[in-house]
Amino acid sequence: MGIRLGANHYGKAETRVFRIVRDTARHVVRDLNVSTSLWGDFADAHVAGDQAHVLPTDTQKNTVFAFAKQPGIGSPEEFGLLLARHFVDDVAPVARAEVRVEEFTWERIDDHDHGFRRRGPEVRTCTATVGDGGAEVVSGVRDLVVLKSTGSEFAGFLVDGFTTLAPTRDRVLATSLTARWTHETADRADWDASYAAARDALLERFTAVHSLALQQSLWEMGRAVLSGDDRIASVDLVAPNIHHIGVDLAPFGLENPGEVFHVTDRPYGLIEVTVERDGEGG
Amino acid sequence: MGIRLGANHYGKAETRVFRIVRDTARHVVRDLNVSTSLWGDFADAHVAGDQAHVLPTDTQKNTVFAFAKQPGIGSPEEFGLLLARHFVDDVAPVARAEVRVEEFTWERIDDHDHGFRRRGPEVRTCTATVGDGGAEVVSGVRDLVVLKSTGSEFAGFLVDGFTTLAPTRDRVLATSLTARWTHETADRADWDASYAAARDALLERFTAVHSLALQQSLWEMGRAVLSGDDRIASVDLVAPNIHHIGVDLAPFGLENPGEVFHVTDRPYGLIEVTVERDGEGG
Amino acid sequence: MGIRLGANHYGKAETRVFRIVRDTARHVVRDLNVSTSLWGDFADAHVAGDQAHVLPTDTQKNTVFAFAKQPGIGSPEEFGLLLARHFVDDVAPVARAEVRVEEFTWERIDDHDHGFRRRGPEVRTCTATVGDGGAEVVSGVRDLVVLKSTGSEFAGFLVDGFTTLAPTRDRVLATSLTARWTHETADRADWDASYAAARDALLERFTAVHSLALQQSLWEMGRAVLSGDDRIASVDLVAPNIHHIGVDLAPFGLENPGEVFHVTDRPYGLIEVTVERDGEGG
Amino acid sequence: MGIRLGANHYGKAETRVFRIVRDTARHVVRDLNVSTSLWGDFADAHVAGDQAHVLPTDTQKNTVFAFAKQPGIGSPEEFGLLLARHFVDDVAPVARAEVRVEEFTWERIDDHDHGFRRRGPEVRTCTATVGDGGAEVVSGVRDLVVLKSTGSEFAGFLVDGFTTLAPTRDRVLATSLTARWTHETADRADWDASYAAARDALLERFTAVHSLALQQSLWEMGRAVLSGDDRIASVDLVAPNIHHIGVDLAPFGLENPGEVFHVTDRPYGLIEVTVERDGEGG
Repeated sequence: MGIRLGANHYGKAETRVFRIVRDTARHVVRDLNVSTSLWGDFADAHVAGDQAHVLPTDTQKNTVFAFAKQPGIGSPEEFGLLLARHFVDDVAPVARAEVRVEEFTWERIDDHDHGFRRRGPEVRTCTATVGDGGAEVVSGVRDLVVLKSTGSEFAGFLVDGFTTLAPTRDRVLATSLTARWTHETADRADWDASYAAARDALLERFTAVHSLALQQSLWEMGRAVLSGDDRIASVDLVAPNIHHIGVDLAPFGLENPGEVFHVTDRPYGLIEVTVERDGEGG
Repeated sequence: MGIRLGANHYGKAETRVFRIVRDTARHVVRDLNVSTSLWGDFADAHVAGDQAHVLPTDTQKNTVFAFAKQPGIGSPEEFGLLLARHFVDDVAPVARAEVRVEEFTWERIDDHDHGFRRRGPEVRTCTATVGDGGAEVVSGVRDLVVLKSTGSEFAGFLVDGFTTLAPTRDRVLATSLTARWTHETADRADWDASYAAARDALLERFTAVHSLALQQSLWEMGRAVLSGDDRIASVDLVAPNIHHIGVDLAPFGLENPGEVFHVTDRPYGLIEVTVERDGEGG
Repeated sequence: MGIRLGANHYGKAETRVFRIVRDTARHVVRDLNVSTSLWGDFADAHVAGDQAHVLPTDTQKNTVFAFAKQPGIGSPEEFGLLLARHFVDDVAPVARAEVRVEEFTWERIDDHDHGFRRRGPEVRTCTATVGDGGAEVVSGVRDLVVLKSTGSEFAGFLVDGFTTLAPTRDRVLATSLTARWTHETADRADWDASYAAARDALLERFTAVHSLALQQSLWEMGRAVLSGDDRIASVDLVAPNIHHIGVDLAPFGLENPGEVFHVTDRPYGLIEVTVERDGEGG
Repeated sequence: MGIRLGANHYGKAETRVFRIVRDTARHVVRDLNVSTSLWGDFADAHVAGDQAHVLPTDTQKNTVFAFAKQPGIGSPEEFGLLLARHFVDDVAPVARAEVRVEEFTWERIDDHDHGFRRRGPEVRTCTATVGDGGAEVVSGVRDLVVLKSTGSEFAGFLVDGFTTLAPTRDRVLATSLTARWTHETADRADWDASYAAARDALLERFTAVHSLALQQSLWEMGRAVLSGDDRIASVDLVAPNIHHIGVDLAPFGLENPGEVFHVTDRPYGLIEVTVERDGEGG
């Protein structure tokens, strides 16, 4: 039995491009981290060291900068699609291109024309993929850190010989959420509005749902994104449970009725769930 | 010539304590990272392995949690002072205590009573030191990331045989600011208001000053903090220059009049400056 | 069209367990970071908030610690399999379990019986998956940082309108390698030896192959792993290209014939490739 | 009372320079992270925005690269001194220069002439300072991660109302050591040998000393460095205590006689101590 080359792709990761639109004195800025990946006929680069089909990753970086100037950055999704289409349409050996974009948020300081401050920790994300005659866009957010100081329970769970956890009817629920939602089509024009609506739906449901488990909160959050935007096909949610452990203050003669918590880093619960429309996926 | 024990101190770093004030349905939360350090008569622990004078760092951690319950966390500065005074006053071998506090900001989601989101990237800081019959408080902020898309120059600098940089009359100025300001006295009651005013002064000056150099911006920012609060004695500013390099698009037939920039990570300029009242320091 | 729950799983990430085997004065240590994930009938936890089927992640953590004692940690692969089999066999709602293990290396200081130092930066990894009546083991390494100071070219590549890179016949080639290899069967007993042989094959080929492209080096490295161990089915390689840029010293009257380089962080080329046996995969 | 400019300095941080000595086929490599800081007459840059005295940080970076070529990198200490002397001697407004160097270790793969792998996690450090007619060199190491699986106690400590920790006669002792030692003089030629000897003395004492406290181990480690090299004046040690907590396995019917530990990240004890020659410091 021989050995053969399997799936492969390559690209330029983390090109940090900052774009100022300075048509008027009131500047608009977009601050992106762009990663490009190409699939295609690259077997010779591997097995023979022949680069004739290889568009250097340095060139991919240049392309990101050039496209940031012209046609410019309308939104992460639009920019990702433009780049992915370029690689597939204009570079012969490329059959498929994936462009991942992270956008960092800047907000104006006192509504100033050209003074800004970073707003975090959350980062807007998108992945635009072009190939096989089609295009797919996945929008999202990462590091959206949210917390409820009450309105969260965890009880009635399965118990085995390794269980020591006590059930609770009132705990702190916190997570650093990553969410990604897949659009039905790449042909929409309202990327920024769609992003804001999905993020707001996630925040609203996280807050308002009385949580019997992080799983339940995530389900309701995903449902809200789909209910609010019929051009979104599915939502993937990845939620580390940032554990807030109530501290035992009894040795010091103090009660602790849900007031003082130790925030721990590791280990952490990690929940991953997809919410989708009936008839989708599997 | 013999060998001797020199300066030494020890403590517990990064106790992550989260406090909920739940007197009413509208919860208030404070989220701190607390580090304690003790100075005193600890020579025997080193040279003889005798721990009789050593308050374990585990006990210091417990103390942070107990104090978070009672008397509670009024502000980072007040909490730090309470802890530092406790260690010096109540633990015999301790001559001096330093408590460093980082506070993470949570803002309400849609003005909800118990639903919050993290606001960053900046973190409020303070160091409270008690000993030698006195107390000192240094307040501050770190990772306050700010940017001006114009209104910044860098020209007329010293040129030597290793200079290749071209002067510029219009560049992007960006930094992740760390500022620390020392109060004239530890006896103030307006810590939260003082913090907000100092941070706002830093932001306002960074934005409004037409910058001939990052040094000049920092000087003006420090001056504004001192001008706005006569109980602040001095301000230390540490400012990495987050370089935004204009990309040469000429090879692609494009002009780039201050529109497309490459944001670089390393190396970076690093400016450190103290602004103080006449008669202070050296 | 309705909305439904899609794929979901959950678990405890990053349980840091340290195990000392102290049967003799010559201690043996194993230092692991263990993450468990469970798949199964967890729909009610999401849609109804009913935890009856949910084994808490806290219990999963306890199980990791208990298994570290008994039966103990033979190797990352063996330990991962034991845990995964336990979750599937002994916890009724669990249909599939995945256990990811990272192992940190400690080497003896001067061959001491119980004094050790960490050896890095590389970390040994494995993923053991049990379910659907079978088991699969993927072994690997991450952050294996390697460099060739010569013996690497990059030339003859595709040129388009965005190309500015010059071809080179002598460059520095460096990467922080992540490699994962899938075993034909979970029934092997030589996990430690197999790991060492695969890692050594990667190192040997990286060094010895005159590289016409990082892709070619990776292909040869993957081939060597498969050639050396007929119970490995395929190898996935992920290789960020740590760019070493030759510095232009001409402005300072100096030549730079491949002697002085600027090591950059971002952006970086990123190559991903699978090498497999004929008849495998797709 | 007016406001004035206080202490200030500036420089270029984290210039990553890689140097190949290729005089023979057996290449020698040095991989450095260099940060330069300048003190001097820079008041006008702050208060007037006048850069006439300011050597741009970009020029400092260029100087690092040029010096890496010529005269080259003999050792971190020698390279740091050369750069610091250049800035003070050749750039008129500069009164004092500090150059911090980190060196990353590469070891040969199978004794190959030009194939290398990174060796970590520890990093060699040095700070060379020139000014006021003199020069000072501080050498060191950071992230030297060491562990003893026995031979460490912690008992007999001070107990107060917040103490819950039990004394122990057998625990795991682990730290990620940072050590810095100040040389009596900058005029030595054996920097590499001196570094190796100091590091080995730290490792040997950490291992061999039966530890009654981390403080005691550090004292013995510092003493050994001074005893072994009479041109070292003092040693600063910073040692976070990486806590390994014995896991309570009793709920699962298992004993745990020092075999299974939970490695925690935060909080951690932090010990800082200076060991010096009699007649030094204060």
